Amino acid sequence: MANAQETTRILRRLLANGLNQRAERLLARMRPADRGPILSSLSPPEIRTVLDLLDHSQRAASTLRELPPELLPEVTEALPDRRLAQIMAQLELDDLLELFESLPEERQPLVRTLLPEPQQRDLEKASVHPPDSAGRAMTTNFVALHEDQSAQQAIEQIRASGADEAVLYLYVVDEKSRLRGVVPIRRLVAASPERRCGELILADPVCVRADTDKEEVAQLVSRYNLLAIPVVDEETRLLGIITGDDAIEMILEEATEDIYHLAGLSDEDRVFSPARHAIRKRLPWMMLNLAAAFTAAWVIGLFERTLEQIVTLAFFMPIVTGMGGGGGIQSLTVITRAIALGELEFSSGLRAAGREMGVAVAIGTVVGLLSGLFAWFWQGNIWLGMALFVTMLATMAVAGVLGAVVPLLLQAMNQDPAVGSGVFVTTLTDIFGFAFFLSLG
Amino acid sequence: MANAQETTRILRRLLANGLNQRAERLLARMRPADRGPILSSLSPPEIRTVLDLLDHSQRAASTLRELPPELLPEVTEALPDRRLAQIMAQLELDDLLELFESLPEERQPLVRTLLPEPQQRDLEKASVHPPDSAGRAMTTNFVALHEDQSAQQAIEQIRASGADEAVLYLYVVDEKSRLRGVVPIRRLVAASPERRCGELILADPVCVRADTDKEEVAQLVSRYNLLAIPVVDEETRLLGIITGDDAIEMILEEATEDIYHLAGLSDEDRVFSPARHAIRKRLPWMMLNLAAAFTAAWVIGLFERTLEQIVTLAFFMPIVTGMGGGGGIQSLTVITRAIALGELEFSSGLRAAGREMGVAVAIGTVVGLLSGLFAWFWQGNIWLGMALFVTMLATMAVAGVLGAVVPLLLQAMNQDPAVGSGVFVTTLTDIFGFAFFLSLG
Repeated sequence: MANAQETTRILRRLLANGLNQRAERLLARMRPADRGPILSSLSPPEIRTVLDLLDHSQRAASTLRELPPELLPEVTEALPDRRLAQIMAQLELDDLLELFESLPEERQPLVRTLLPEPQQRDLEKASVHPPDSAGRAMTTNFVALHEDQSAQQAIEQIRASGADEAVLYLYVVDEKSRLRGVVPIRRLVAASPERRCGELILADPVCVRADTDKEEVAQLVSRYNLLAIPVVDEETRLLGIITGDDAIEMILEEATEDIYHLAGLSDEDRVFSPARHAIRKRLPWMMLNLAAAFTAAWVIGLFERTLEQIVTLAFFMPIVTGMGGGGGIQSLTVITRAIALGELEFSSGLRAAGREMGVAVAIGTVVGLLSGLFAWFWQGNIWLGMALFVTMLATMAVAGVLGAVVPLLLQAMNQDPAVGSGVFVTTLTDIFGFAFFLSLG
Repeated sequence: MANAQETTRILRRLLANGLNQRAERLLARMRPADRGPILSSLSPPEIRTVLDLLDHSQRAASTLRELPPELLPEVTEALPDRRLAQIMAQLELDDLLELFESLPEERQPLVRTLLPEPQQRDLEKASVHPPDSAGRAMTTNFVALHEDQSAQQAIEQIRASGADEAVLYLYVVDEKSRLRGVVPIRRLVAASPERRCGELILADPVCVRADTDKEEVAQLVSRYNLLAIPVVDEETRLLGIITGDDAIEMILEEATEDIYHLAGLSDEDRVFSPARHAIRKRLPWMMLNLAAAFTAAWVIGLFERTLEQIVTLAFFMPIVTGMGGGGGIQSLTVITRAIALGELEFSSGLRAAGREMGVAVAIGTVVGLLSGLFAWFWQGNIWLGMALFVTMLATMAVAGVLGAVVPLLLQAMNQDPAVGSGVFVTTLTDIFGFAFFLSLG
């Protein structure tokens, strides 16, 4: 990391001094994936200079591909249409589509006509599929083998094809292009040359439909540890392949979503997206949060009399909130993660919920005892200590149960188990805790 | 998912009624990865019956491999040593090692002697590497090509080898077994038969040392979208390969860690691990949380006089906490995730921190205005409303900055940016919020 920081500094200095050739050499030596984070530290005009330097379009394309998508609009803005089309022509279809759709609508038709003919067609075909679907993430640049081909013929076909992506699995189709099975390339190479591909296949491969959501694709890839997944239409005709690197990207994307949803963030709210974007995306969740907080405030308001008499009760309210909230989020995290990894069905989920409650009660006892003792010594009031102990124990137990049950219920209702459950669990826990504590008070 | 629940129910009924043959057929039809979640819903004795049914050791092994690791001890406990060794003999080295180490120490020597000779040696060699290192996750069952071999010879070698794992990339070594480069298998197949492997290689492949931490391996795999990664010793001699499915597992593991650390959970606290385990792991973080909460309580205590006079101030404390905490966690999540994905260097991090503060101020203004107005109308006190407005604005800004800066600082100090930063940010925000609000009050 220190290295990347150093490289960024050098690159900046070279660019500032117009030492473009040296900057180019520095960039050419890097792996494309290493250029991404370094370029992200530059300003959009600097990035454009870099893309101009990488005059080899292939190299510029692979660099552009590694930029965070939220930086694309600013970077492509000032690139001339022709140059942009040249770079785009080097991209795989999925990256091409992503870049194309990041362009302002009025610019799209012109850039499209500057692309080579076959890519124009591919682009048109791909944009039929719904956003975030497998159809948009697949490459159509694949080798399909026919079940009646011999192993030798298949190998010759692979040699002749210009397929760029690593061919990991070879998909075998029948005369109507319907997917019959998959042949791992090792198996093909190892087979005696005259064997039919149809005999070499592993039948019933995991596949997805073009309109399958990326989220589901990522789950399948994680569950079956697949390195590539074929995409078919409703008649199981092979349309394309989602390759391993895209599968890994989807898994990372999926993990980001899971982490984001627990914090009430939208997927598109990334570190480089414009601030106004982030504000618009975060406000609704903040409003929900505010409504929840006001409900809690209203509950406390019901106990105005009690609070007037024993104002010290107010000191302990953040303890009840903090511990209940923390405990609830822990249970929630354990359960939502297990759901995301496909480790949990509803029946084993109930067992897990029971376990979370047990854990919460045990922790609540320890933490409650400590808080109670502390409160007793601090305020010299044993009743206050006991009230705090009972409240903590009860609140932690409620937090544990809610943290486990809420995501399971959301999942059973086919909802995302993470969205909104954080606010819901902590608010309910808080309200319960306040009401319980102040009633005891 | 509904399907899996149904299958579990049927399986249970078959097992309960001793209809073992039908249960076996049901299981044999499933993919190994689908057996995992279904078996997790069964009790350990039921799981053992299932493993006995799968009398084909290969099938039992692939099923065992899909079980969550925390269920292993209970399941293997009652399997006879000989049967266990038979099943283990079918596992890849990394899975073998994991299972072996889950056995009680007194059982390990006996089971080891029951394993076939070569696996005993492999096991011994692998256990040299530190826990969670690349050396323990690699397979040693790979094909290494020599740089002077012809493409034709290489293909024949692959044919002759018994390598089970899909061979995606072929690694080429020199006469001293030092890694020279990688040949994608397509390139090998496509090459004219007499070309030297040394000419076909992509030089300078990304590789890791045997003692590299899995976390770092996962980051490299994510960053470069690798489908396999070679493992070398200090003299760059090829020791093994981490294959694509293990790489995907590491990425998922890594994502779990990131999610867990934000909630203060330990990696080993999984949904099926024993409750006492979870309690022991969660207590320290809860203690930290408690200390933080008591600090907040103490700060409120400083304002006892103020609270006695205006008890309504206490109503609004959960609003300050809830909103500040929520905002802080959002900034924290965006920044830690960007760090985890390698999108952020320290310099671009400072820019991102500025952005988070801007977003926080904007949201704080809106949310603060709303809360202030609401408080004014509810309590009929314009000063209270204004105090709340200013407090919310200031607290949200502080939360945004802390949420962004704390993980960046931890990262710069080579610490995990997620561990502990959640408690730290929310507590500091709370304390600031209370102190500010009550001072104004």
